[in-house]
This record gives sequence, C-alpha cells and structure tokens, in this order.
Amino acid sequence: MTENHLTSGVSQEEIQSVLLKMGRQAKKASYLLANASTEDKNRWLLAMADALERDTDLILKANLNDMETARKNGLSEAMLDRLMLDPARVRDIAQALRHVVTLPDPANRILSSTVRPNGLRIDKVSVPIGVIGIIYESRPNVTVDAAGLCLKAGNAVILRGGSEAFHSNMALTQCIASAAEAAGMPHGAVQLIPMTDHAAVSVLLKMDQYLSLIIPRGGERLIRMVVNESTIPVIKHYKGVCHIFVEKTCDQEQSLKIIENAKCQRPGTCNAVETLLIHRPVVAEFLPKLYAYLKEKNVEMVGDASCRAIIPEMGEAVEEDWYTEYLCKKISIKVVESVEEAVDHINHYGSGHSDSILTQDEKAAEYFLNLVDSAAVYVNASTRFTDGGEFGMGAEIGISTDKLHARGPMGLPELTSYKYKIYGNGQIR
Amino acid sequence: MTENHLTSGVSQEEIQSVLLKMGRQAKKASYLLANASTEDKNRWLLAMADALERDTDLILKANLNDMETARKNGLSEAMLDRLMLDPARVRDIAQALRHVVTLPDPANRILSSTVRPNGLRIDKVSVPIGVIGIIYESRPNVTVDAAGLCLKAGNAVILRGGSEAFHSNMALTQCIASAAEAAGMPHGAVQLIPMTDHAAVSVLLKMDQYLSLIIPRGGERLIRMVVNESTIPVIKHYKGVCHIFVEKTCDQEQSLKIIENAKCQRPGTCNAVETLLIHRPVVAEFLPKLYAYLKEKNVEMVGDASCRAIIPEMGEAVEEDWYTEYLCKKISIKVVESVEEAVDHINHYGSGHSDSILTQDEKAAEYFLNLVDSAAVYVNASTRFTDGGEFGMGAEIGISTDKLHARGPMGLPELTSYKYKIYGNGQIR
Repeated sequence: MTENHLTSGVSQEEIQSVLLKMGRQAKKASYLLANASTEDKNRWLLAMADALERDTDLILKANLNDMETARKNGLSEAMLDRLMLDPARVRDIAQALRHVVTLPDPANRILSSTVRPNGLRIDKVSVPIGVIGIIYESRPNVTVDAAGLCLKAGNAVILRGGSEAFHSNMALTQCIASAAEAAGMPHGAVQLIPMTDHAAVSVLLKMDQYLSLIIPRGGERLIRMVVNESTIPVIKHYKGVCHIFVEKTCDQEQSLKIIENAKCQRPGTCNAVETLLIHRPVVAEFLPKLYAYLKEKNVEMVGDASCRAIIPEMGEAVEEDWYTEYLCKKISIKVVESVEEAVDHINHYGSGHSDSILTQDEKAAEYFLNLVDSAAVYVNASTRFTDGGEFGMGAEIGISTDKLHARGPMGLPELTSYKYKIYGNGQIR
Repeated sequence: MTENHLTSGVSQEEIQSVLLKMGRQAKKASYLLANASTEDKNRWLLAMADALERDTDLILKANLNDMETARKNGLSEAMLDRLMLDPARVRDIAQALRHVVTLPDPANRILSSTVRPNGLRIDKVSVPIGVIGIIYESRPNVTVDAAGLCLKAGNAVILRGGSEAFHSNMALTQCIASAAEAAGMPHGAVQLIPMTDHAAVSVLLKMDQYLSLIIPRGGERLIRMVVNESTIPVIKHYKGVCHIFVEKTCDQEQSLKIIENAKCQRPGTCNAVETLLIHRPVVAEFLPKLYAYLKEKNVEMVGDASCRAIIPEMGEAVEEDWYTEYLCKKISIKVVESVEEAVDHINHYGSGHSDSILTQDEKAAEYFLNLVDSAAVYVNASTRFTDGGEFGMGAEIGISTDKLHARGPMGLPELTSYKYKIYGNGQIR
C-alpha cells in the first residue's frame, strides 16, 4: 500500500507534471462534488470510516515505518507522540468522520431570496469553494479530519502533510480515497501529494487555476513560507499572542483561576495566554498573590519594571517578550494605567487571536470588547475557549486571524462560498 | 485647494514616508470609526454632501485643469466624458452620499448569539474590515462614492484614482474630508494619495501592516498589476466574459430580445454578453433570425464552422475569441451539442462573472444553475442585471469573481468582517 508512490529525488519536471494532473483531477471532481447530495457525501464519509477500521493493520504498518525513521532521526518524545498511531487512535479518527456525518451540510442552502420589482427572483445560495489545499505538519489524523470536513462541504482537497508522517499519510489517504471512490465519490476528490520534495509545495502554491484556497496548519515558519509563496488566497493565523487584562474591579480569586487555566491547561496551543496586563490600581494587591499562585504551578514569569519593583526576584521582560508566543509555561506581565492603554498594547503587540478582560465594570468590558481588534474577545473567561468544538461548531478546520471570509474558529460553513441563482421570464434592462 | 499637495517627481524616500504616515493615520482612525455610531457616520456623510454643493466652483475649477491637460494629451471623447464634471454631476455625487445615509449600517450587528452549556454567551458581531485601499481609473465620482460606502461601513479608506483625474480627485477629497472632520470624523479616515507616481501604488500595495483589503476597479491590466504586486488581500474581477446559452426549448422571440439587451444596452460594461452558445437542434432555425436581428442593431458577429455553414458571410471565430471581452458591439457564437457542453465551455473559457440559459426546460435550467461556476447564473434573463442596484443592495462598491469573502455585486455588508464577543462569569476549560 505504501509502495506505489514517488518519494524524494524526483525531477522538477516530473513534480510539475504530477501536481498539474492532481490539480486538473481535483478541479473536475469539484464540479461533481458541488452537485452531490448530502446523502451521497455522508455515504462516502461512512465508507471511509469503515475502511479505516478494516485497514488498521496496514495503516499501523506504514506508521511504524515513519516511527522508526523518526526515532533514527532523533525526534523528541513530544514529536514522536504526535506522529504515533495505534488501534485506539485509528478508531478515534474513524469516529471523527462519523461525527462529521451528523453535522449539517453547509452547501446548497438558500441564504436569502428576494423578488425584485421586475419579477426577477434572486436566490443567494451557499456553494462549495472548489478545490482546497491543506498544508500541515506532523499529526497524521489531520489527513483524515481535513479530508472529511472539505468533502462534507463539497470541496475537493489536495493534502500535504509533514515529511516525517509521509508513509502514514499515504496509507490513510489511499485507504479513505479508494473506499469512498468505491462508494461513488468522484476520482480526484481526495488526494495527497505523493512525494516529500519541498518543490512540490512550491508548485502547489502557484496552481491558482485549480485551487481556490490554501489552509496552512502548523508553526509560524511554515505559515509564513506558505503566505510568501502562494498566489492562491490563504486563510491562516501566524501565532496566538493572547492577552488577559486584569482590570481593577475584577474578582481576584476568579482571576487567578482563569489565568492559570489560560496558561497551564495546554500551554502549547495558540489560544493559551502569553501576556498579562495588570491595571495599576490593583497591582500591589494582586501581583504577589498571582506570583505565589503561578509559581506553585511552575510557571515562569517575566515582568516590566513596575512588576519587578513589587516582586524583585521576577525576571525582566524585554521588548521582544511582548511579541512572543512562548508555547510553554512562561508568561510576560506588564502594568498598565488604563483600559485604553491595555487595548493599545493588545492592538500593537497582539496577533488578533484571543484576548480577555477580567472585570466587574460593564463599561470597561464594553470598551474592551469593541476596541480590541481580535477574532475572539472575552469578558471574565479563559482564552482557551477559542476552538470550533467549544464554540459549538461541531468541528474545526482551523483558526483564522484574517478578516476576510473567515475569522476565528472555522467550521463547515466557512468552507463554502456562495453564488446567485437568478430566475427570470424574459427580463431585460 | 489643489495647491498643497505633491505631484510627480517626488523621491522614493519621500513617497515611502508620505504613504506610511497615511497608513498609520488610517489605522488609528479605523479603531475610532469601528466604534462610531450610525448617527455619527450619517452626520459626516451629510456634511460631505453639503460641502460638495457648497464647494462646487472649486471642484469644477480643478476639473477644468484636468480636462485641459487631458485634451492636450489627446484623450478620446469617451474618456473626456468620463472625466468631466459639471454642476449637475457634482449634485448627483452629493445625492449619492445622501442615499448612502438612508442605507442600513452593516456594522455592529449581532449575526448570531449562542449560549454554550457552560454558560458562555458567544455573540458573532459584524465589524468593519479596517483600512481599505481603493485603486480606480478615470471617473472622479468614484472618489466620493467609494469613500462614502467605506465610511458608512466604518472603514477608513485610502484612495488612488487615475492620474488624469488627479486635480479633480484632490479637490473632491479635500472638500469631503475637511467637511466631515469639522463634523467630528477622525482625521485620516478619508485620504487620497497626494501624488501621481506609480511608485506610490507599489508602496501602498505592500502596507499590509495597515491595510486589510484592496479593491481595484478598472481594466484588466490595472487589476493584474494590483494582484501581482499586492501583499494585501484583493477582491476583484479581471473581466466579464459572459455567456448566454440558447437551449433548444427556449422562447425564441424572447431570446432575441434578451440577447440584444445583454449585448447592446451598454456594451462596455462587464456584465454585457460576449459569447452565445446555441444548442444544435435549434441552430438552423434560430441563427438566421438572430443574424438578421443583430445585424440591424449593428452588432458584429463571429462564429464557429457550424455557424458559418448556415451563415456563410459570418466572420470566423478563432480560439482567442472565446476568451475575449469585446467591450463593444461584437459577439462570438458557437454551436454546442448539449447543456453539458455549454457548461464545460463556460467553466473553461468564462470569467466566473454572469452567465444565462434561455430555456423552458426546468431540468436543463437546474443543471445549468448548479454546474456553471460563476458569481451570477441566470435563467431567461439578461446578464446585465449583475449590479448592486439591480440586486437591491442600494449601492455597489464593486463586483467580485473571487470565491472568498464576497462574490458578485458587493454592497455595504461585504465591507464588513466579524468578531466574536464572548461573555463569561469565570469559565475555564
């Protein structure tokens, strides 16, 4: 199952030719998918889920191949854990597909319908976007999750995973694509780039004649590369430099718990908090409590001069810290004079992802909610809730800090566009 | 009024510095605009409209300056007419602003509100996009129309018009910006690039730290330049290669009138028809009638071999014709065997703008509506209706053949993004 694909060392010409063929097939499939019924799409998703459970042994064999190489290459335990598949994880991947079946189909919905004075009926109808490219890093489950969500919304998908998961991703893709095609899915609807060369990504990112959208998922370096190279629209977030502003009227006990949760529950995620802004009037009272509380949770704290005047043993936060997504149990702390200064700091240093104000003052909350220019702005809650599942979307294909098309967690509706269908009986202008 | 601006011949450094300052001011203004009330924004728009009528003489003097240069440079009568302002046209521009006042404010609307099982209330709220760049060609009215629409939706705008209209655009912008600022509009909310150098456009298109969207309006050359140079998302249409498919069951008398309207009513517009596809079973009967009908309206016709077998004096359509937007009274004609072939032709050669099927067969209509991958797809009507006004949007900032964010005519709601405002009382994960 992992034999009939190309690996690295392929000529530039061959790469170009393979990618263009994939693009053409995907585009052709996308027209058929756009016209497929919800029942058809659900049948294909179920066939995929069943096939994953049936072919688990083959998938695990391919994964073992990746794991051995990864160990030889000295990947960290955390990376190995991300890469690793076992029967339970494959079952979870299959179950996630069955869950997508239960979600409402976002395509072919009449979003609005108006009859104009001249009798023209104008229906605005949701339609799939077309062909979507997903570029991601090590977790093999993304292969199936992303394919399932794109397919449910009626899109064809071209996948490109991390090279360390190459054999796993090939096995997963061949399993689900062949099972779904046997159930009637158009050929080319779900494809994985069958080589690990970086040159293949460069070709993909220029195929704007076939692809309508690229969604990169991974670290900032990967995403900047994609944005710089792509001629296709990209929806992305670079990083999550999320803030919590401790306003003077906040419930201090509650604030400690929210801050701990936002930093510690999963520090490696993009919606974890990186910077605390503390309102001057409460800093002398609040900071010592916070310092003791977070120290006990093994959080490293760095602060500005005002913080260090209160807690001399605290490390120093330098300019660079305010831009930094630590992705670990480290946090920067700054004292601000006002909600205005907090908002200005966030709009300047933040990443437009998720920011929270802790306050009992409704006016301060309203000002913060309105002026902070981020995808998700919170009052009295942890930033960790910026997530498709937590938002009740049922599933998430990614998170956007862009302002066009989709912002914040992206679910199935964000994988659609719309068209106007106009019904006349001879109208002319 | 037209004295205190830079013209061409400015150093690259100076251009960079002027543009960056404009960007900073616009970004700062955009935060205040996002928080402005509908009443405020309407008051500013009315102040602009009144100022245009009050300052008509100054505006016409600046326009005269442009007109004289344009005549010296030998611009065509059509171009001169586009450029020309007179008291009636200035009044129309002012009236268009007063019309924008009557339109609903698209910002700060709760698009959805859900309460999660943990008690978090998640409001999805429309917000302005931020700073929008508008790059356009000769008509000076676009300066005011675009500024008014961006402002009503709460966006700051940086305008760049055609160099031939430079003095007119400067006069218009200074008039409306100073009047609105006197009425309380934030400084920097409406700005025009005060120089004609192309280098200024290149700088603007890279200022993604300040601008969130570029809308180019003009010919294909201008738009390709913008897309190639810009690091900011662009919403655009390159051209309108629109089709009408004459299906065998159509009402032939009605079809003649629709085709004539779509070609002749305003041949220079993007929603005029460029290619007719005629269903083989009716071509022998329909084509001679059509040929006589359009010949009388002075339409030049070019056809494929099947057409010329019926009408030998018809010119020959070559491959290039199927891609061509004539923008004049010329049309290409091709015979197709089926609705499938018509759809394939349109999806291959078309521009994704507006396409129409003329038919009495509901199944053929449905197939065409679903499979043609264009912004607006019609049954039994002229393609000329793809227009914000005709769609009942009240106003139009442009037309998009993109699939992300906005497709088809773009009105005020398309000038907004959204954010999530999340209300908690201590929720943690």
